[in-house]
Amino acid sequence: MNETLLQAPHRRWNPLKAEWVLVSPHRTQRPWQGQTEDIATAAIPQYDPACYLCPGNARAGGEHTPTYDGTFVFTNDYAALKPDAPKINEDIEGLLRAETERGICRVLCFSPRHDLTLATMDVPAIRSVVDVWAQQEAELAARPEISYVQIFENRGAMMGASNPHPHGQIWATEHIPNEPAAETRAQAAYFAQHGEPLLQAYLRTELQQRERIVAENAGWVAVVPFWAVWPFETLLLPREAVGTMAALTESQRESLADMLQQVTAGYNRVFDTPFPYSMGFHGAPCDGEQHPEWQLHAHFYPPLLRSATVRKFMVGFELLGSPQRDITPESAAATLRSAIG
Amino acid sequence: MNETLLQAPHRRWNPLKAEWVLVSPHRTQRPWQGQTEDIATAAIPQYDPACYLCPGNARAGGEHTPTYDGTFVFTNDYAALKPDAPKINEDIEGLLRAETERGICRVLCFSPRHDLTLATMDVPAIRSVVDVWAQQEAELAARPEISYVQIFENRGAMMGASNPHPHGQIWATEHIPNEPAAETRAQAAYFAQHGEPLLQAYLRTELQQRERIVAENAGWVAVVPFWAVWPFETLLLPREAVGTMAALTESQRESLADMLQQVTAGYNRVFDTPFPYSMGFHGAPCDGEQHPEWQLHAHFYPPLLRSATVRKFMVGFELLGSPQRDITPESAAATLRSAIG
Ligand SMILES: O=P(O)(O)O[C@H]1O[C@H](CO)[C@@H](O)[C@H](O)[C@H]1O
Ligand SMILES: O=P(O)(O)O[C@H]1O[C@H](CO)[C@@H](O)[C@H](O)[C@H]1O
Repeated sequence: MNETLLQAPHRRWNPLKAEWVLVSPHRTQRPWQGQTEDIATAAIPQYDPACYLCPGNARAGGEHTPTYDGTFVFTNDYAALKPDAPKINEDIEGLLRAETERGICRVLCFSPRHDLTLATMDVPAIRSVVDVWAQQEAELAARPEISYVQIFENRGAMMGASNPHPHGQIWATEHIPNEPAAETRAQAAYFAQHGEPLLQAYLRTELQQRERIVAENAGWVAVVPFWAVWPFETLLLPREAVGTMAALTESQRESLADMLQQVTAGYNRVFDTPFPYSMGFHGAPCDGEQHPEWQLHAHFYPPLLRSATVRKFMVGFELLGSPQRDITPESAAATLRSAIG
Repeated sequence: MNETLLQAPHRRWNPLKAEWVLVSPHRTQRPWQGQTEDIATAAIPQYDPACYLCPGNARAGGEHTPTYDGTFVFTNDYAALKPDAPKINEDIEGLLRAETERGICRVLCFSPRHDLTLATMDVPAIRSVVDVWAQQEAELAARPEISYVQIFENRGAMMGASNPHPHGQIWATEHIPNEPAAETRAQAAYFAQHGEPLLQAYLRTELQQRERIVAENAGWVAVVPFWAVWPFETLLLPREAVGTMAALTESQRESLADMLQQVTAGYNRVFDTPFPYSMGFHGAPCDGEQHPEWQLHAHFYPPLLRSATVRKFMVGFELLGSPQRDITPESAAATLRSAIG
């Protein structure tokens, strides 16, 4: 590793999105006098009568969450997308352009237990969640009006999760959203040039360098990507070529469940606090095209920077210029590696 | 206006960045049970002996802020960029790529008064800030190693500002950051096709439609852009063609000061609270090229959504898919218009 990268300001290229991130390794000395976050201290009960995701409870709009074991999927009561959105096609001189976006928003409860999280669930229980993701992805991808299925989880109040009950969301859209569209362009260009998926070549390089790897098992590898934006961002990569959740083999599902458990539990140990994050899977679009360039992967975007209460703010320069980070991906990887153990 | 746009989910095109935003107008009914923000209730004194930006006080690293009237500029004590960063040029198979990013980070105090903000300063005082921005931009742009000067302000603890003393930042970089680079590409493509700057044509369309304009004066117009991401996002546009802050005429500077006062004071009236935001100017790069396509403008990115304590979270779907908003730009514009009055 070039030692200068660990000390001097520089920018790194994100080949998956085709954009830059600014790295300022020397800036960690900056004292923090700004906003600090609350630590959730209230003990979380196994069952909360006020929680709309706990078995048997009432939801908004008169629905009821049934008594369930394992997982439970339902259509979001306040869906941002609707399958039957009316036709819109507006274009005023290429400057005011709007189009219909049909879609489906579902919620997936990971467990009937209000107090568990991916970090504290056991691997067989997480394996059931993986199976539901795969099945939901397949079902939604088969619908002719859907081009992309985005599976994600917002964890923690800091990440806009309005309920601690372990759950994720699935938003399926008529068009490919910006982020997977950018990843499609970059992966397709790489594949056209090299005849190999970008993320397969990238994983090989990381396995040689071994400076940013945080966890490994039979089927999956977790790294802090060379171009990470969030302080402790990670990328989960399957060892073998696979484009979608539905295409994962039995053993890949098993090791994904194990990897999710390792990574989320590791995060919690970094600052000895439930680590907030948004995570999600990116896989090949279901737009009717072949996507040999696509390698399935998961992104974890966790906001904490220095402690349980001091986060990274993506504000002024980050919003108006480029993303910026204060600790190197290599030092974040070392911290995570020892937390995962 | 197509009424369907005000009610049904759709996506809108941002021609300045060449990307989409998802709009879900019906989603405002969603009850909010998640994180709420603290309201700063402590009265802010005119002078705070613990503030490193107040005249005469000590800063980190043994520096002192002098006694000053009006404005005061200094190099950030914890600069994310350095003018003398050592040479880095790493490229491992196009997958691990890093480059030196030289630069300069300065802080600009808007006023010696700890308790004022752009919203409560008078127009002549804001005019002095505009003049310093123009002078700083010109000075930094003249340096051969600098290609872009990013002027911005993070306002409020929610936006990572670690000090309420009225101040902004100026980061000058060797390379053009991602956001102005995307805006350069989009404006150049439009200019090549139409022979007119994109934002001049856009302003004309907005002045015809009059649905998203929130304030106007002799030299500037503030609109909620058709493609706004943040709930009450605004775009400040000069009426005449002008590429940079330094190129603003006397009367354009005067009306910019007035417009900044109107818009920031208007924000504070929306929820009767000091409205947090990140704002900044985008102007032509100083990369040695001609930029007839560029029209100077300011972006305001304020996070509040429903009240002084309920913000919009840019999380799961937004980070992994596309930005998403719950209120239409048209309804946000109506709210802001009446707040500005
Ligand atoms: O330098 P400040 O004001 O302490 O820092 C603030 O603005 C910077 C530029 O947008 C961000 O990188 C920091 O995350 C934020 O806390
Ligand atoms: O649907 P939820 O969990 O209440 O909402 C959360 O996730 C959504 C998808 O990322 C975001 O649009 C919301 O801002 C956030 O609060």
